[in-house]
Amino acid sequence: MGKIFDKDIDFTKWYTSIILESELIEYGLVKGTMILKPYGYSIWNNIQKGMDKYLKKVGTENCYFPLMIPYSEFIKESKHVEGFAPELFKISKLGDKVLEDELVIRPTSEIAFCHYFKSVCNSYNDLPIVLNQWCSVFRVEKNTRPFLRNSEFLWQEQHAIFSNEKDAKDFSFRMINIYKDFMNKFLCLPVLMGEKTEYERFAGASKTFTCEALMQDGQALQVGTSHYLSTNFSKNFDIKFQTKNNNFDYVYQTSAGCSSRLIGAMILVHSDNKGLVLPSLIAPYKYIIITNNEKDNKLEKVLSHVKASLGSIIFKHDDREKGIGLKLSEYEVKGVPFQIIIGSKEVENNQITIYKRNTQEKIGYSLNEINFDLFRNLLLQHDEELFKKAEKFLLDSIVKVNNLEEFILAIKNKKIALAYWNGNQEDEKRLKDLTGASSRCISWDHNADYQNSSNQKCFFTNKDNAKLVYFARAY
Amino acid sequence: MGKIFDKDIDFTKWYTSIILESELIEYGLVKGTMILKPYGYSIWNNIQKGMDKYLKKVGTENCYFPLMIPYSEFIKESKHVEGFAPELFKISKLGDKVLEDELVIRPTSEIAFCHYFKSVCNSYNDLPIVLNQWCSVFRVEKNTRPFLRNSEFLWQEQHAIFSNEKDAKDFSFRMINIYKDFMNKFLCLPVLMGEKTEYERFAGASKTFTCEALMQDGQALQVGTSHYLSTNFSKNFDIKFQTKNNNFDYVYQTSAGCSSRLIGAMILVHSDNKGLVLPSLIAPYKYIIITNNEKDNKLEKVLSHVKASLGSIIFKHDDREKGIGLKLSEYEVKGVPFQIIIGSKEVENNQITIYKRNTQEKIGYSLNEINFDLFRNLLLQHDEELFKKAEKFLLDSIVKVNNLEEFILAIKNKKIALAYWNGNQEDEKRLKDLTGASSRCISWDHNADYQNSSNQKCFFTNKDNAKLVYFARAY
Repeated sequence: MGKIFDKDIDFTKWYTSIILESELIEYGLVKGTMILKPYGYSIWNNIQKGMDKYLKKVGTENCYFPLMIPYSEFIKESKHVEGFAPELFKISKLGDKVLEDELVIRPTSEIAFCHYFKSVCNSYNDLPIVLNQWCSVFRVEKNTRPFLRNSEFLWQEQHAIFSNEKDAKDFSFRMINIYKDFMNKFLCLPVLMGEKTEYERFAGASKTFTCEALMQDGQALQVGTSHYLSTNFSKNFDIKFQTKNNNFDYVYQTSAGCSSRLIGAMILVHSDNKGLVLPSLIAPYKYIIITNNEKDNKLEKVLSHVKASLGSIIFKHDDREKGIGLKLSEYEVKGVPFQIIIGSKEVENNQITIYKRNTQEKIGYSLNEINFDLFRNLLLQHDEELFKKAEKFLLDSIVKVNNLEEFILAIKNKKIALAYWNGNQEDEKRLKDLTGASSRCISWDHNADYQNSSNQKCFFTNKDNAKLVYFARAY
Repeated sequence: MGKIFDKDIDFTKWYTSIILESELIEYGLVKGTMILKPYGYSIWNNIQKGMDKYLKKVGTENCYFPLMIPYSEFIKESKHVEGFAPELFKISKLGDKVLEDELVIRPTSEIAFCHYFKSVCNSYNDLPIVLNQWCSVFRVEKNTRPFLRNSEFLWQEQHAIFSNEKDAKDFSFRMINIYKDFMNKFLCLPVLMGEKTEYERFAGASKTFTCEALMQDGQALQVGTSHYLSTNFSKNFDIKFQTKNNNFDYVYQTSAGCSSRLIGAMILVHSDNKGLVLPSLIAPYKYIIITNNEKDNKLEKVLSHVKASLGSIIFKHDDREKGIGLKLSEYEVKGVPFQIIIGSKEVENNQITIYKRNTQEKIGYSLNEINFDLFRNLLLQHDEELFKKAEKFLLDSIVKVNNLEEFILAIKNKKIALAYWNGNQEDEKRLKDLTGASSRCISWDHNADYQNSSNQKCFFTNKDNAKLVYFARAY
C-alpha cells in the first residue's frame, strides 16, 4: 500500500495519489488516456446503471452510433465546427490510401444524430424522439488530468428532437434538473445551476444549462450540461417533419451529457488524506467484512448473523491471510463506506466493530443490536453527511462582490464570486485574463426575476440590465 | 410497413430487408458502419447482460481500455501485426501536426492489455488476472455487411494471464465451452466446435478454438473464438512474474471474444419470410398485448387478468389507434415471440388469442386457462423448438466426403463437408481457391482421438495422420 499525499501540501499530488492508490486507473499508452481498472470501472458502471434509470424516466431509448464522422458532414454547422475543430482527432489515411474526406473521431455526436434524425423523422407522429448512447468521445487536450480532462473519456450523450420550441426548451430544462437530482442523490454532490453565458456556451447551442460543483481547492467543475439547440442544426441538416396541418417545419433539438468527470468531482469533493470517500450508491461494496483467516465455529456464528442481516446490501467478506489492520487501511484508501471488523476480541464478546469511513469512527455493536435496518440506516446517514458537508462548503464559499477589487480578493481566497454581470465575450475574456476566473453560470437561485431584465449595473462594464453570475477558477 | 424479400429468391436481399424493416439498424455515414436503433440495441443489450453473467462465473472482471494504441507498440508481436496490418485504421495527424508514431484504432486489444499486464503483474499471488471489456473495434473491410462484417462492430474481449501452461490452456478451452452454452441457451443457436487449422488461426495465437454456426443458405459463420496465446505475447512484452521459488517466469496468456455478429447469426438461422424470429431471452419484449384503442370495462377486466398472469415476464401493451391486423404484422416482422390478441370477439367470449411467431399458429385460450406457468412454458417451448429445428438443419447438413469430387459436390449442395485433412497453409489456400470452401475447424465431436494422431490419410494431400475437419463456404 502506497501513500496518500497531504492535500493541504499538494492538492494535485493528493488527487493523483488517490486515483492510483485506490486502483481506479492506470495511465494509458497515449497521452491523456486512462485504463479504468475493475474497481474504477465498477464505480462508472454504478453511475451508468443509476443514471440510465433517470434517463428512461423521461422516455429516453438507448442506441449506438458509429465512432467516425466524415469531416464533410462535420462542417455543416459552422459554429459547431469552429468550436470543435482544434480538438479533433482525424483519420486521413486508410492503409496507404489518402482519404479525400477525412474521418473525425467523435468529440460529440450531434452531427451523426442529425443525419439519422433526417432519415427517420417524417411526421409529427414520429416526435418527440429521445435517444441516448453510452460511449467514449475524443478531444485533443494540452493539459490532461485523469477524469477531469482526458483525450478519451466515457460519457452518455442524449439527443432529442421535438415538434416545437416550447417542448424542446422545457425538455432541456428538465434534463439539467434530472442531472442535479442524480448528482445530489447518487454522488452526494451539491451543485449550482444556471445558464451559461455566451462565452461558455456549447458550440452550436442557443442556450446551455449547467450543473457546477465546487472542489475542495475552491475550483469549480462543470459536471453536466444540457443544451437547447433550437433549429440551428435542423436547418443546416434539413431535418423537417410534416405538421398536423400538412405543412413542413424544422424540428427543435436538444442534447445533454454527463461524463466520467463525475468520478473526478466525487473524489475532489469528498475524499480526504486517508484516501477515497465513496457515496454508498456508487461504491462497488457498501460493506466489507474483515476477519482473520482461521476457521472457528464461534466466528462462523457471528459471521452468518452479520451476513443474514446485510441481506440485499452489497458486501464482500475478506478472509485473506493478512492482518486485520492492513486490510482496514487498504479499504480505507479505497473508500469503502463501512468495514465490519470481526476479530478475536469481537468474537469473544459477541459483538462487531464498525469502521465508518467518512468520519473515521469505530463503533461497537452487540450482536443483538444488528439487523438490516441498522445497516441500511448507517448507509443513509453516511450519504446524508457527505452531502451536508459538501453543501455547507459550497454555500459558505459564495461571496457577493460589488467591484473588481472585491472580485479579485474573493477569487484569491478560493471563493465563488457572485456578481452582477452584463458583458460580452470580449469582456469576459478580459476578466478571465485579469483574474483567472471564468463565469460558471447565470445563477437561477439568485435571479428570481431571471426571465426578466434587472435594473442592476454590471460590476465590470457598468452596463445596465446585469444578472447575478457565479465566477470561479475552474478545471 | 415495407416488404420482406423471399429468401428462396434472394437470400441477401431477404437478410437486408429483415434488419431494416424490423428496425434493428440504419446504415452509418462511413462505409461498413451501422447505427444500432433502439430495438437493435436492446437485443444487443440483452446479449450483453446474459453473457456478462457467464463471464463473471469464471471470475472475469470488467474494465475499460483506451481506443488508441501507438503503432510502435503494435508491431512488437510480429505475427499479430502481420495479420492485422492490412485492416488498421490509423491516425497520422493531430490538427496539423504529423505524428511520428501513428495511433492505431484498436482492431482488438491484446497489445493494450499486454502493456497493462506488465505494469500490474509482479508475483504469482497476482495471478490469474481475468479481465474483459465491452467496446467497439475497427477493421478496414472491403465487403461489408451489417452484423456479419463491419468496419466498426461491438463486442466483448476477454484477456487473461496465468502462471502456467495448463491453467491457461484449460481456461481457453473452458471459455469456448462457455460461449457454446450461451449460444445454445440465449440464442437457441447450435454450433460445431473445434480447433482452427493454422491457416485460420488468430494472428499471434498458438491455438484458436471456435464455435461455428450454419446459416440457412448453407454458409458457415464463426460466432465466437477463444485463443491460447502461450507466451507469444508475454515474451515480446516482457510480462514476467516472481514464482513461488523466487524465480521469474513469463505469464501464459489467453484471449476470447464474441461480437454483434451473434445478432447476424441469430437472424440468418431463425428468421423466415415474415421477418425476424427472436429467441425469447434476447427479445426486447417476450409478449405484446394487442388491443383496440377503446376504453371498455370488460376489456379492462380481461387485460388486468392477463397482465397479472404475465407477472415478471417482460411485455408491452399496444393500444395505439391502429388496426389489430396492422399491429400483428408489425410485431411479426419484429420477431416478438408471442402476441396476445384481445379484440372485441375475445372480450365477448372471455378469452384471448395467442399468436406464436415461430410456427405462425393462432391458439385460443379461455381466461381461466391463463396463468404465469402457461406464459412461461410457452416461452420455453418456443425456444426449444427454435433450437431443435436449427440443430436438425445443422446435423443434416454434415456430409462425410472421401475425395475431391465428393467434396466439391457437398459444397455445391450447400453442405458442410467433413473430411480427413492434413495439409499446410498452402494446401488449404489451394483448396479454397478451387472450391470456395474453407476449413471451419478440426472437429471435436468426430475426433475421439483428437489429442493423438490418427492413421488416416488426407483426402487432398494424401498425407498420413489426418484429422476430421469441417469445411464449408463461410461468411
